Amino acid sequence: MRIDGALLERRLDELYAIGVEPGGGAYRGLYSTAWAAAGERVDRWMRDAGLTTRRDAVGNIWGRAGGNGKAIVTGSHIDTVRRGGRLDGALGIVAGLTAVETLLKEKGEPRRALEVVAICEEEGSRFATNFWGSRAIVGAIDSPDAAMAEAMRERGLDPANAASAARDDIDTFVELHIEQGAVLETANVPLAVVSAIVGTAHLELAVTGRPDHAGTTPMDLRLDALAGAAAMVQAIESIAKSLGKPAVATVGKLEVEPDQINVVPGRVVFTVDLRHSDLGGRRALEERIRSLCATISQERRLGLAMRTLQEKPPVAMHPDVRAVLTRAARECGVQATELVSGAGHDAQILAARCKVGMLFVPSIGGRSHCPEEATRPEHIELGTTVLGRALEMLAY
Amino acid sequence: MRIDGALLERRLDELYAIGVEPGGGAYRGLYSTAWAAAGERVDRWMRDAGLTTRRDAVGNIWGRAGGNGKAIVTGSHIDTVRRGGRLDGALGIVAGLTAVETLLKEKGEPRRALEVVAICEEEGSRFATNFWGSRAIVGAIDSPDAAMAEAMRERGLDPANAASAARDDIDTFVELHIEQGAVLETANVPLAVVSAIVGTAHLELAVTGRPDHAGTTPMDLRLDALAGAAAMVQAIESIAKSLGKPAVATVGKLEVEPDQINVVPGRVVFTVDLRHSDLGGRRALEERIRSLCATISQERRLGLAMRTLQEKPPVAMHPDVRAVLTRAARECGVQATELVSGAGHDAQILAARCKVGMLFVPSIGGRSHCPEEATRPEHIELGTTVLGRALEMLAY
Repeated sequence: MRIDGALLERRLDELYAIGVEPGGGAYRGLYSTAWAAAGERVDRWMRDAGLTTRRDAVGNIWGRAGGNGKAIVTGSHIDTVRRGGRLDGALGIVAGLTAVETLLKEKGEPRRALEVVAICEEEGSRFATNFWGSRAIVGAIDSPDAAMAEAMRERGLDPANAASAARDDIDTFVELHIEQGAVLETANVPLAVVSAIVGTAHLELAVTGRPDHAGTTPMDLRLDALAGAAAMVQAIESIAKSLGKPAVATVGKLEVEPDQINVVPGRVVFTVDLRHSDLGGRRALEERIRSLCATISQERRLGLAMRTLQEKPPVAMHPDVRAVLTRAARECGVQATELVSGAGHDAQILAARCKVGMLFVPSIGGRSHCPEEATRPEHIELGTTVLGRALEMLAY
Repeated sequence: MRIDGALLERRLDELYAIGVEPGGGAYRGLYSTAWAAAGERVDRWMRDAGLTTRRDAVGNIWGRAGGNGKAIVTGSHIDTVRRGGRLDGALGIVAGLTAVETLLKEKGEPRRALEVVAICEEEGSRFATNFWGSRAIVGAIDSPDAAMAEAMRERGLDPANAASAARDDIDTFVELHIEQGAVLETANVPLAVVSAIVGTAHLELAVTGRPDHAGTTPMDLRLDALAGAAAMVQAIESIAKSLGKPAVATVGKLEVEPDQINVVPGRVVFTVDLRHSDLGGRRALEERIRSLCATISQERRLGLAMRTLQEKPPVAMHPDVRAVLTRAARECGVQATELVSGAGHDAQILAARCKVGMLFVPSIGGRSHCPEEATRPEHIELGTTVLGRALEMLAY
């Protein structure tokens, strides 16, 4: 099959222009005006491609071709973070749509039902929700709160009807996405088949010492909460490094009290973001971190309170779909690598109801969620071609 | 001589009640109503003790007895920090006044001029100034800004006349103060003769890495500004400990950007407060810190910018005054220890124009600048007795 690379770039440019922000980047928050305009554009592209479109009860847009039985679905989310980039979400929609359009032209009607979806929300872009669109598809949403319900009504959607978006007739979901990291670029590999999406735990650690005068308190009489927290930050980094890939641990937020230049810190609160593709690995990472931080606090006679803010298990991609994607890549002349996704994706939600798989193309400099987010056009074309070949194998 | 311990406590209670704050503690900001009321109370006590009082051009209150030649002076500052304690400053005034009062009663008129001073400001309690009172005495003040000039006029002081507060007729200044740390309490020693007031440098270090996605960036591809800063915080603590007393180094303020749970920190800015009683020691401390932090930033390929926010040299107490204070303590049956003051005091300013010396009594739990600030009554009585004996040796 012959994917039109220029068409991909043009469509990505068109979507990126919707919701453009003054300081750079675009913002398409769930149920916003920009979000609605982008959805209309995608709906028109779908219809122009010969797909039958419909909007479900939460605003996911579906374009369908072909036959019977459970559907083969491709696509991604249409919402963006604030000052978002050109590709996160948008690439999966544009690539899926263009691949299906090309298949219809070159191969005719598919044997199985083949669908493209623009999922309404994945980013928590406007309300305190994540994976709203994919959770609706698997029947795992609660009632929206008042502000969100009002926003739905503004878009002509009935919040009371949201549960009707659930589907049980999807066989396989395949998504092309940017890596959002620099592993592929660093390894000089143009494509990855995702093996799993990491499990994430968010911890909060509060270290309590004693605020003392920075001049009158000798080093050996201090209970310095920040010196203790610094030892913990060091230990957390060392543990993640020593466990090896794909373990990662990040201290992203840290707050000092009283935060005065001449007072020994009395209290420090910081967060740890822990990820691993394997639940045992993630738990081992967390266990070691908890244990070493407790030891550090005891050695330094500091108080330590730890609590879990959030916990999500890792999700493996389906072996059949991984095999199809790997074969499709090989048939397109590419030896795809296997990669664990460190970021969350709709596939991890949809995995509850269907077979899922993902392809990653490299992110230049590993940048994402910012205006600098970019992927080389030949990688975009390659990823779309492999996606199309996989859809052909699945649906024809 | 026989100091009335109950009188000391009563006077301290009376001063502490002036400017009392709803949440606990007292606040007597420079030129405030509470500040003026406290000054009037001290002025009355001085006159009742038989001293001739006057208020100088910046509001320092002087009470004088005796004769000719350069004066022997004792006292402390009358202003407080917000939510200040009962003793910081107040103790030096009450103890000096009560000691002089007792001397006048027991020994009659002194051979030399003997004065008690309530210094108007030391804490930077209200305006962006420190040591305003003692700097005025040594002739080292600039014109006050508009707000402060207005506050002076409200108290009947002419800001244009401030320079006339300067004196060159002081021989010796001796001050009793609380330690504001826990060294004496820990060592179970009731009294210290201060050997020097530390020199302080305040540095600011800005560490620059790269903000990356916490999930998609493997540990080995990160430029984590906080992990680097944590290594520096650890190194700074180790250096101060290894240099030994009286070196202290404190990282009191630390700020993370972007400070998000799932983003690798791109930038961290933190402060270092460095103190040592010896200029060479302070510089060695700073040099080692700068050098090791630079090494850490290079190893981790992080940017590092260092700048000096403030620098004050250490000030030695006069050997003659130290000797008198040590002898006075011995004659009162106490083996005083020697201590370096980690906090700043008026004596470090007055040292430019006269001989200076200080006595410290223990702070319970090392607490200061807070409502919990306290010293055992027998330590207050002992410190005042030794102060009185030293004043007798100097002025009679």
